[in-house]
Amino acid sequence: MGLPDADIFPHATGKASEVVAKHQSEVGPEGIKFYAGWFCPYVQRTWIALLEKQIPFQYIEINPYHKDPSFLAINPKGLVPAIESQGSTLAESNILIEFLEDFADGSNSKSSRKLLPAAPQAKAVARMHIDQISKKIVPAWFRTIQAQDSQAQAQGRKDYTDALKEWATYIDDDKLHNGPFHGGDELDAVDINLAPFVAREYLIEKHRGGPITAEETGETYQIWRKAILSHPSVVSTTSDKENYEPIYGRYLRDEAQSEAAQATRAGRAIP
Amino acid sequence: MGLPDADIFPHATGKASEVVAKHQSEVGPEGIKFYAGWFCPYVQRTWIALLEKQIPFQYIEINPYHKDPSFLAINPKGLVPAIESQGSTLAESNILIEFLEDFADGSNSKSSRKLLPAAPQAKAVARMHIDQISKKIVPAWFRTIQAQDSQAQAQGRKDYTDALKEWATYIDDDKLHNGPFHGGDELDAVDINLAPFVAREYLIEKHRGGPITAEETGETYQIWRKAILSHPSVVSTTSDKENYEPIYGRYLRDEAQSEAAQATRAGRAIP
Repeated sequence: MGLPDADIFPHATGKASEVVAKHQSEVGPEGIKFYAGWFCPYVQRTWIALLEKQIPFQYIEINPYHKDPSFLAINPKGLVPAIESQGSTLAESNILIEFLEDFADGSNSKSSRKLLPAAPQAKAVARMHIDQISKKIVPAWFRTIQAQDSQAQAQGRKDYTDALKEWATYIDDDKLHNGPFHGGDELDAVDINLAPFVAREYLIEKHRGGPITAEETGETYQIWRKAILSHPSVVSTTSDKENYEPIYGRYLRDEAQSEAAQATRAGRAIP
Repeated sequence: MGLPDADIFPHATGKASEVVAKHQSEVGPEGIKFYAGWFCPYVQRTWIALLEKQIPFQYIEINPYHKDPSFLAINPKGLVPAIESQGSTLAESNILIEFLEDFADGSNSKSSRKLLPAAPQAKAVARMHIDQISKKIVPAWFRTIQAQDSQAQAQGRKDYTDALKEWATYIDDDKLHNGPFHGGDELDAVDINLAPFVAREYLIEKHRGGPITAEETGETYQIWRKAILSHPSVVSTTSDKENYEPIYGRYLRDEAQSEAAQATRAGRAIP
């Protein structure tokens, strides 16, 4: 079937297109070039972090299935999201968020806002909470979406909502935070890691068994979810729903060819 | 077959037992308690980092298959390695190494040595190199050891040595470093992440096809390997070889019950 993923809508729409339009100018030699795909949840993580940190950046749309040779020249693996900064090309959304925190510390960023706690112990705990998102929540999200038989779909959904329920206890239990977000009244790196998958949770609700309820996830997650879905940095990095449909239709039929989709299909770790 | 892994030799031996003996005293309220299993490669990562950073710590031996209730009380998932610091229990070897770096920055550590570069771009690149160890090298190490048929063993070994060859280009290519280590003349967090698996590479050589050659890995890796295996912090966290044999015999027969072994057997990501 070739690469059907290549026929994606070519650019951001809705609220996200307004942010893209504001970030078209070339940045200076010290500035950040952000290589993005408007629909990708990993891209959205980095994008939210750029907005939250108020770091100037140039947004460059990449179709990860039709990689431009000039992009491959600086980023041979062709990974998106990627950031080019002072001659280095950096990738992996978790690593990029940590990079933006470190970069802002050493620059004249307008914002002094931190995405990770200052105390080494609390910082390690936050990283453990991010690790759980990567290892438990995101793989269950993909399994639920890609599963074709109803038993595997139900099991995926149970794994997903069980993991969310456990994760939500960190908001309450962590004495540093007081909600609605993991980071308190502002997003932190933990919230940002989970947000894009929650922004795509409606796919599970629509195609994999209806609304996700407080019975499945506990009440804390429901409060968090409502807050995250209306947060300005999440809203303004989200495109019109109808443009996600053809892309995620391929996941729902288990035909998608992204690395995450292929790994999920093979029962391997998402690279 | 129950839990044969539980019948492990109970404590460190050889050079490692000397280090354990030096780190038995209780540390003060600001000090670090290090919960370890002497044979575990993930433990060894954290242990090397503690020595390299010259951070005082109390070594506490845990048999991960016979978890003491007092350990489970502070660390409900029972993960080893774990660090207890100022009331927080922290886990995951990568996160612990980053924690030790952050902790030393804020304490009166005798050492000003860094395990990660200061420049945000170079720090992100180092984290990408660690990510490749976690995603490509370590899974191939376990697949090679646990594979039972000769074709799967050969494929595992090829995946492992190909990944090492690619990784070794980072030592040369990264203009910040000049060998023999990734970090230059001293170990960095990237070297430390890989070292324990290389210290156990003799199992592959002995049981999975003989000496690992420069033809398989390239010359740079061979130079790095020789340097790492004679590094004092690696040597002094390694026990007598004969005590690893019964533990890894279970891996070589694919009977081991550790989380890494079970995940490898099921074709899943190592948690």
